[in-house]
Amino acid sequence: MKQVAKNYGKKEILKSLDFELQPGKIYGLLGRNGAGKSTLLNLLANRIFPTSGEILVDDQNVIDNAQALGKIYLMSEKNLYPASQSLEQLLRGTKLLYGKFNFQLAYDLAGEFELSLQQKFSKLSTGYRSIFKLIAALATPAQYLLLDEPTLGLDAHHRNLVYQAIMDDYLENHRTVVIATHLIDEIANLMEHVLIIDRGKLILDGETEDILANAHLVVGPAKDVAKYTAGFNIIGREALGRITGYYIYGPLDDQRILPDTVSIEQTDLQKLFIYLTNNQGGIGK
Amino acid sequence: MKQVAKNYGKKEILKSLDFELQPGKIYGLLGRNGAGKSTLLNLLANRIFPTSGEILVDDQNVIDNAQALGKIYLMSEKNLYPASQSLEQLLRGTKLLYGKFNFQLAYDLAGEFELSLQQKFSKLSTGYRSIFKLIAALATPAQYLLLDEPTLGLDAHHRNLVYQAIMDDYLENHRTVVIATHLIDEIANLMEHVLIIDRGKLILDGETEDILANAHLVVGPAKDVAKYTAGFNIIGREALGRITGYYIYGPLDDQRILPDTVSIEQTDLQKLFIYLTNNQGGIGK
Repeated sequence: MKQVAKNYGKKEILKSLDFELQPGKIYGLLGRNGAGKSTLLNLLANRIFPTSGEILVDDQNVIDNAQALGKIYLMSEKNLYPASQSLEQLLRGTKLLYGKFNFQLAYDLAGEFELSLQQKFSKLSTGYRSIFKLIAALATPAQYLLLDEPTLGLDAHHRNLVYQAIMDDYLENHRTVVIATHLIDEIANLMEHVLIIDRGKLILDGETEDILANAHLVVGPAKDVAKYTAGFNIIGREALGRITGYYIYGPLDDQRILPDTVSIEQTDLQKLFIYLTNNQGGIGK
Repeated sequence: MKQVAKNYGKKEILKSLDFELQPGKIYGLLGRNGAGKSTLLNLLANRIFPTSGEILVDDQNVIDNAQALGKIYLMSEKNLYPASQSLEQLLRGTKLLYGKFNFQLAYDLAGEFELSLQQKFSKLSTGYRSIFKLIAALATPAQYLLLDEPTLGLDAHHRNLVYQAIMDDYLENHRTVVIATHLIDEIANLMEHVLIIDRGKLILDGETEDILANAHLVVGPAKDVAKYTAGFNIIGREALGRITGYYIYGPLDDQRILPDTVSIEQTDLQKLFIYLTNNQGGIGK
């Protein structure tokens, strides 16, 4: 995406997004409700068009480019399937669109998830709709899989099976996978790279490992913690009785002396995300 | 619910359910995808009818009973709203159905969630649909609130706001609330009572506190753990290197001597749920 913006009327949904997806990598696309995640994925899949800027797939513009689009599959939250067809028929239709289709994988996964393919899509629960859409996505030959909330409405067992299926596919096919999700803790280990968007802007774009190496929680008595972290990029504060914790993002200053009363702990992606996108102070107040 | 069963054709969705909801209590309704949670809630709200058995609200049959039904509000996963109306109009329609409606609360919550009520329901994302449906539910005067996946598609901030809104309403109005969800960890503290259904059967019906008092993890070397737990109700097993953990459900035997190598730990509702409903061995294999 090169300087991509998207407006609806006067409303700016995405503002000048600039980033690149590397081949064969799993991306986590994180953002709050309304941040612009689904709009971003719909742009990548050419279902909507940018107001300005350019979207290239392997150096080719995606707009009106069947070859480029054949490389991309978007599993979206919207349910676009015709109501009258069985799941089996829908899979055959997907094959027509993409040329190839891994029916064996689709049947195997349907078995694992206990999904009968003779049913109609419109009769499925939210959870089973997610399962079917994921199966269709994984069985296409697309080199870029865009998965918008792949675990929507799924129980913990099924969410685990979904993460396993994505990982198995990744190890076998080395595709580029973009996963948009609100269950950050659960996919933290799956993502190699993190993209965080907040109110239409890309506010973080980095390798998961590097990001976590820069995220810390400094814990101790309020006064000592405040003194030690002065000048650091403090993104959040929490208190538990007389103990205070400051979340900081950025490199630590090795020259500073850490008081005995203060300790530095790792923090996780979910906490980091919450504080980086906490526009209202909704959590941890 | 008295001996309620529900079939679709030859398929038994619910099998002889027998339970009672107490006034002024928060219930967690837990079950895997396809277990029958939504069917159960739709029966309670009289949107569908039981194949056999009886459903009473304050001792009155719900079928064709407007007074009894006015006491119940179901926030369902299905989106039943007419596409052409604004959210504001939909709220006015809800008032017509229920007589009273707390518009002040609805406006306050819409402000907290940053939801403009001038929009059309069909234009909302999955997350904002959940938010709107929850607002409509909390603003009705219904004494029984049935919430089917109230946090579907919501980010962590918004999920937290939802739990807070449910708790605030509960403290003020003392209604009976039934929450069906797959995010068990997050609502564990909110639920006073747990109902678990598995493949159409009610397999657990108890106070959260009592249930947790009976759920244990026994950890130690495999041989010692197996010996100590022999005869107990073992619902799951995990291993980490040479250390083994058995999940057991039921009272402990105080006569048994606990070896020094073995320790007994608390377990949480999510783990208990996973093992009680693990028909396929999908997790923790």
